[in-house]
Amino acid sequence: MHIRIINGPNLDRLGEREPEHYGTEPFPAFLERLQAAYPAHRISLFQSNHEGELIEALRAADGPDSGVVLNAGGYTHTSVAIRDALALMRAPVVEVHVSNVLAREEFRHRSLTAVHCVGVISGFGLEGYRLAVDHLVRRAG
Amino acid sequence: MHIRIINGPNLDRLGEREPEHYGTEPFPAFLERLQAAYPAHRISLFQSNHEGELIEALRAADGPDSGVVLNAGGYTHTSVAIRDALALMRAPVVEVHVSNVLAREEFRHRSLTAVHCVGVISGFGLEGYRLAVDHLVRRAG
Amino acid sequence: MHIRIINGPNLDRLGEREPEHYGTEPFPAFLERLQAAYPAHRISLFQSNHEGELIEALRAADGPDSGVVLNAGGYTHTSVAIRDALALMRAPVVEVHVSNVLAREEFRHRSLTAVHCVGVISGFGLEGYRLAVDHLVRRAG
Amino acid sequence: MHIRIINGPNLDRLGEREPEHYGTEPFPAFLERLQAAYPAHRISLFQSNHEGELIEALRAADGPDSGVVLNAGGYTHTSVAIRDALALMRAPVVEVHVSNVLAREEFRHRSLTAVHCVGVISGFGLEGYRLAVDHLVRRAG
Amino acid sequence: MHIRIINGPNLDRLGEREPEHYGTEPFPAFLERLQAAYPAHRISLFQSNHEGELIEALRAADGPDSGVVLNAGGYTHTSVAIRDALALMRAPVVEVHVSNVLAREEFRHRSLTAVHCVGVISGFGLEGYRLAVDHLVRRAG
Amino acid sequence: MHIRIINGPNLDRLGEREPEHYGTEPFPAFLERLQAAYPAHRISLFQSNHEGELIEALRAADGPDSGVVLNAGGYTHTSVAIRDALALMRAPVVEVHVSNVLAREEFRHRSLTAVHCVGVISGFGLEGYRLAVDHLVRRAG
Amino acid sequence: MHIRIINGPNLDRLGEREPEHYGTEPFPAFLERLQAAYPAHRISLFQSNHEGELIEALRAADGPDSGVVLNAGGYTHTSVAIRDALALMRAPVVEVHVSNVLAREEFRHRSLTAVHCVGVISGFGLEGYRLAVDHLVRRAG
Amino acid sequence: MHIRIINGPNLDRLGEREPEHYGTEPFPAFLERLQAAYPAHRISLFQSNHEGELIEALRAADGPDSGVVLNAGGYTHTSVAIRDALALMRAPVVEVHVSNVLAREEFRHRSLTAVHCVGVISGFGLEGYRLAVDHLVRRAG
Amino acid sequence: MHIRIINGPNLDRLGEREPEHYGTEPFPAFLERLQAAYPAHRISLFQSNHEGELIEALRAADGPDSGVVLNAGGYTHTSVAIRDALALMRAPVVEVHVSNVLAREEFRHRSLTAVHCVGVISGFGLEGYRLAVDHLVRRAG
Amino acid sequence: MHIRIINGPNLDRLGEREPEHYGTEPFPAFLERLQAAYPAHRISLFQSNHEGELIEALRAADGPDSGVVLNAGGYTHTSVAIRDALALMRAPVVEVHVSNVLAREEFRHRSLTAVHCVGVISGFGLEGYRLAVDHLVRRAG
Amino acid sequence: MHIRIINGPNLDRLGEREPEHYGTEPFPAFLERLQAAYPAHRISLFQSNHEGELIEALRAADGPDSGVVLNAGGYTHTSVAIRDALALMRAPVVEVHVSNVLAREEFRHRSLTAVHCVGVISGFGLEGYRLAVDHLVRRAG
Amino acid sequence: MHIRIINGPNLDRLGEREPEHYGTEPFPAFLERLQAAYPAHRISLFQSNHEGELIEALRAADGPDSGVVLNAGGYTHTSVAIRDALALMRAPVVEVHVSNVLAREEFRHRSLTAVHCVGVISGFGLEGYRLAVDHLVRRAG
Repeated sequence: MHIRIINGPNLDRLGEREPEHYGTEPFPAFLERLQAAYPAHRISLFQSNHEGELIEALRAADGPDSGVVLNAGGYTHTSVAIRDALALMRAPVVEVHVSNVLAREEFRHRSLTAVHCVGVISGFGLEGYRLAVDHLVRRAG
Repeated sequence: MHIRIINGPNLDRLGEREPEHYGTEPFPAFLERLQAAYPAHRISLFQSNHEGELIEALRAADGPDSGVVLNAGGYTHTSVAIRDALALMRAPVVEVHVSNVLAREEFRHRSLTAVHCVGVISGFGLEGYRLAVDHLVRRAG
Repeated sequence: MHIRIINGPNLDRLGEREPEHYGTEPFPAFLERLQAAYPAHRISLFQSNHEGELIEALRAADGPDSGVVLNAGGYTHTSVAIRDALALMRAPVVEVHVSNVLAREEFRHRSLTAVHCVGVISGFGLEGYRLAVDHLVRRAG
Repeated sequence: MHIRIINGPNLDRLGEREPEHYGTEPFPAFLERLQAAYPAHRISLFQSNHEGELIEALRAADGPDSGVVLNAGGYTHTSVAIRDALALMRAPVVEVHVSNVLAREEFRHRSLTAVHCVGVISGFGLEGYRLAVDHLVRRAG
Repeated sequence: MHIRIINGPNLDRLGEREPEHYGTEPFPAFLERLQAAYPAHRISLFQSNHEGELIEALRAADGPDSGVVLNAGGYTHTSVAIRDALALMRAPVVEVHVSNVLAREEFRHRSLTAVHCVGVISGFGLEGYRLAVDHLVRRAG
Repeated sequence: MHIRIINGPNLDRLGEREPEHYGTEPFPAFLERLQAAYPAHRISLFQSNHEGELIEALRAADGPDSGVVLNAGGYTHTSVAIRDALALMRAPVVEVHVSNVLAREEFRHRSLTAVHCVGVISGFGLEGYRLAVDHLVRRAG
Repeated sequence: MHIRIINGPNLDRLGEREPEHYGTEPFPAFLERLQAAYPAHRISLFQSNHEGELIEALRAADGPDSGVVLNAGGYTHTSVAIRDALALMRAPVVEVHVSNVLAREEFRHRSLTAVHCVGVISGFGLEGYRLAVDHLVRRAG
Repeated sequence: MHIRIINGPNLDRLGEREPEHYGTEPFPAFLERLQAAYPAHRISLFQSNHEGELIEALRAADGPDSGVVLNAGGYTHTSVAIRDALALMRAPVVEVHVSNVLAREEFRHRSLTAVHCVGVISGFGLEGYRLAVDHLVRRAG
Repeated sequence: MHIRIINGPNLDRLGEREPEHYGTEPFPAFLERLQAAYPAHRISLFQSNHEGELIEALRAADGPDSGVVLNAGGYTHTSVAIRDALALMRAPVVEVHVSNVLAREEFRHRSLTAVHCVGVISGFGLEGYRLAVDHLVRRAG
Repeated sequence: MHIRIINGPNLDRLGEREPEHYGTEPFPAFLERLQAAYPAHRISLFQSNHEGELIEALRAADGPDSGVVLNAGGYTHTSVAIRDALALMRAPVVEVHVSNVLAREEFRHRSLTAVHCVGVISGFGLEGYRLAVDHLVRRAG
Repeated sequence: MHIRIINGPNLDRLGEREPEHYGTEPFPAFLERLQAAYPAHRISLFQSNHEGELIEALRAADGPDSGVVLNAGGYTHTSVAIRDALALMRAPVVEVHVSNVLAREEFRHRSLTAVHCVGVISGFGLEGYRLAVDHLVRRAG
Repeated sequence: MHIRIINGPNLDRLGEREPEHYGTEPFPAFLERLQAAYPAHRISLFQSNHEGELIEALRAADGPDSGVVLNAGGYTHTSVAIRDALALMRAPVVEVHVSNVLAREEFRHRSLTAVHCVGVISGFGLEGYRLAVDHLVRRAG
């Protein structure tokens, strides 16, 4: 199974600042550990600050034997376009947020995208990605 | 007259899924028929998932002997930037939606862009583009 | 095919005042041109300022080989009763607005009736009626 | 480590109805499998339809070497009292929802309780409990 | 000190239309005068219609001896992603609007980005950029 | 006692469409059965699609030994004028809705008229009229 | 000058009930006194419970040497159609309410019609009509 | 048929105070008369001030040959948990309110529970229970 | 009778600017004409820009043989304190606005003070004061 | 006089955590001091986390020579049922909050229960109970 | 200790009207009794109808050995300026309302000032001032 | 040119408290430096806590060769009266806020006054006044 992690705006900077929300571990190191934990599957990463590129990455990720872990960052709360892209997908998508969005500003409580995802995992730091991958692997299995 | 159809995010996938909203005909076949019906005019297509590229396409489309058919997709409901781009245009713009947006989720009822368009055509499937082109041709004539 | 144009309150006064919203052409002259353009079909007009009469006109217009072009005027934004009447119809109904309602006062942005129509055409002046008729003819064909 | 699953109203009926939201597996069978997967830890279940009993169960669950998986059901969206009880806790609490609450009615989008939890897992069926337990075990480890 | 002016969508067209909001002076001429007035500092300009490129420009602009003058245009009112990018910055950012946004449509009264800026200057035309640069220079001095 | 059933817009079409909301029985057949069940009282029916005629029917129905069963249809949710007419009445009025309005669109949850009625019966199909008549008869007795 | 008083729904019942809001004097007696006070002008009355008839009465009242005193009753707060009819008028219209609408229910605080009237007189009982006539006469003079 | 009346908080005090809303008859006397009127059926009463006990009573009441008359009192307007319990039921439930809730405070206009009931009877005093029982008996018959 | 006109902030500048809202006649000239028209009564003027002074002027104006014409200007829409002062008065108060406040910005549609006045006269320019005085005189007579 | 302090959810934990809101003194010690200060009266305490038990405690507390100090905790903001219980009471009830609820989250600013209490004392820590008792004693005296 | 009672608009008229909200006792008599009850402290009164004078009185009242009892009257609900003045104070301030503001109009439920006060006492008539003084004395002691 | 700085409530206390919002420099020292920097112009200061005095100061400041820097403090967000005073002015007014109001409580995000100012400068401490003066001088020049 090919699991694509699709990260939205600013998520290439995880580990740099605001550790109370985002922790201190850089993403590449985490990804390596994650791949090692699931050797039977391929885990790849795509990050972009561009709404349009995220839409295209979702499309490219669609197909049989695919799964997506999506953290659309700030676009989660504002993008009807990504929501529409998700509506077109067949592969399962899990929405992940590093911070506990429901404990932050009110405009972060609304997710336009969650409605077309399997579910949402929010607040567990990078660990949230592992939980999402774990779910996709089980689901496929 | 050069009429540019500018399609926003996910509209290159018309005909693939959600036929109850978007129908089953792919856009290229439709476009060919449309051009054939208006041989005296040039009809071209631009599609992008990127808000910024749509802004630039609108600018490039501005000028005398020009008309625009805009389906900004999900950006219709969220983009102040496209609205501002439309405010700068002289060429007439017709807003088109394939599905009947007023019969869907409430966040699709608001159009930030319509205020700077000639008018809106919504709910007629691809046929809506033909109606828009028909109007632009008459208006020019 | 019998296409009935059903016009709501004040629409018998098109061409009299507020030309920036409604243009200057009187409706009868326009209707004559419209009928001439579609000689194979019968196009008739009903206008009323009464919500109840519009409901009854919709009912009378329902049936096979029928199509309706509805401009409910101010009732578009306030009438649950007309909405309910539309829900009972089998014939296709196209909603038309002469002015671009989405570019006017906010209470004109809501359409109670659109949800039971095929689609909405708004902002093209009397031309909007022609586009609606054109669609109904094609759809029937 | 002692991990307490605290289930709120109606959650003793999982597997009985509304399978599109809640699946078909009864909770006891699931719990057995879950305990077997984490033999080094004790996993217990408390269910109540009473807001007050849930508050008391949370208090009883607090302490060192403890973790809580809370699915407060309908109280998630209405209970200031449970929120206040969570604010008094030291043990980590993970909020779980069987169904994808963000894809359901709008009143289910608000969580009064999430603000005092580590994070939220929503939409993965009973699997969500396993993910929550998995997180608590790792966190403790 | 290196001061970067980062302009968002449509701001490359300043001076072209809507002079009541935006004035008539093109930006390049203004920029030249501005650089001349502050010869001890480097003032550069970046403009993009793309939300993602603005995020990346902000990141590139961060660092010691840096200052940013940000006019995010329409994204000011809609972009959580740019807000998050600003939250990651150490260099001071001044938000500028050419027009008096508080005297225009209500959706322009909300700034998602201002919370992570030093302050806001709005309504002074291109002069607003000069005031912002002047502040950054003094602040650094 | 003379009990008048006053039905608002579209209610002459009960039994024709949308059976999930309105059932399949035509009103005249039902009325006959109803009168037969209460031979000591006179039960009459007035239906109109016109807001003004409903106001006048209410006035005509007022008086001693009178009772009214009112189903104002779509006007229930929009008519201040009917509300004011009800405020002028002495005869008891029972509000009836064939469908369960609280389980439908949100704009059907508000009743402008209920405040001046004895009470509301909603969701029991035509049976609701019988319950209302039954109440008026008992109340009078 | 011909001054038409146009009264909306239920206003033929003034003096019958709710004296705390509407007083106890019947309208005909008042009208006679009013005409006697302004012998140089013609004062006529039109009352209807029908929104559509009020629209038509407004149209019929338009013209040179005309003035209108409009009390649209409950339609004041709900009728976009009457508002649109007023927008088409040249003769001056004064809006009158017998009761002090701003001291009653909140839905009576909004007037859709006032925007196209000279002004509003509210709360003075039948005396309000006299004040309105007095103004129209002076204005004409 | 076994018809269970399930009364929520404070409803054991009917007849004690606030007669303008709740009347003066105590419930037990009423119940006796009600059972006598329907000798072929069993009518029982359950009252609780506890949200959780009401949920459990609903569950216990579910089954073939069952019907429920539910007056959830104050929980009608606040309890997602009771709503969820109703969603799990097969037996028909009729919602009853002694007072006319639509004529009282605005927070009483919203019913979270009505959506999963057959219908609502509100404002008829204890008589409302009789109407509900009458309906359930007929429906079963 | 002593009729006090109490004018709030900026109303000493009537006639200076914004003639489309406020006309061009200065207040003193108007007042002289007004006094001349009602020689049997004393008409005096108090103007203040201070909320507190207006409260004190209202108190001083209370008493037998008194009437008040109040134009609280901008405080109409914001002052709970003046509302409370009006609630303490016995003398009749008529609220006047020179411009048609219901045809201006939405925050001018709310009057905190009207609830404790006899009624409101709005939109008739200085003439509105005359209508108010006329009413007070008649009322007293 | 018998004064009952009725404490809602989590209030048995006063003094344990969140001292910035709730102080550090345990309730029993405080109660002892309070009773000592008012030897002529009996002061008793009831605490429950259950909404239903609080309703029953209120009922039990009603009677002559009784007074109630109610701190309904989180139920203050959500419980229509407790509000209804208070409406049935004759004994005076004083609402107390340990923390200054108006200085905390917005959902704590609304009190459903205050409307049926003598008054509210909020923000004085346990001292607030003493002030309430002091008031009840004086009032009785 | 010097305790200043600062009363806002209209509070010099306590005892004159609206006894259901404000009681019948004049303030001076009450103040005398209050001073007599606390002979070790100085209690003074300042009253003003002017927002600005209240701000200045608060400032003058600040200092060591000071306490303030503030009843800002109508300004409680509208004055950001008084709120800001309170934010600058070191002396403790207790907010008092004579009537139970939470049981009156909704706009009285919001207190802009409470956030910078120790707490709020509302609904106890003049007695509320005594409770506030009592608290300040104890707090100081 | 005569530039008047008009400061609203509490702004005479700048430098005393809340340095995170308002800094620590007292205004007089700052003003001296400011005057020294613009020797060719006269810069004067007016401060008042009274809404009415601010209105009068604005009027006094109007005229040729005048400019105003207005910091209306808390009145910015609440005063329609000051807004109306600004609407009457011919001299340019610049709105200044010492703190970044858009980064504080939501009620500070609305400015009633900005619509009649040239622009707004917010968040730069006392420096904001200098920027405003600088702009007025340039504008005049």
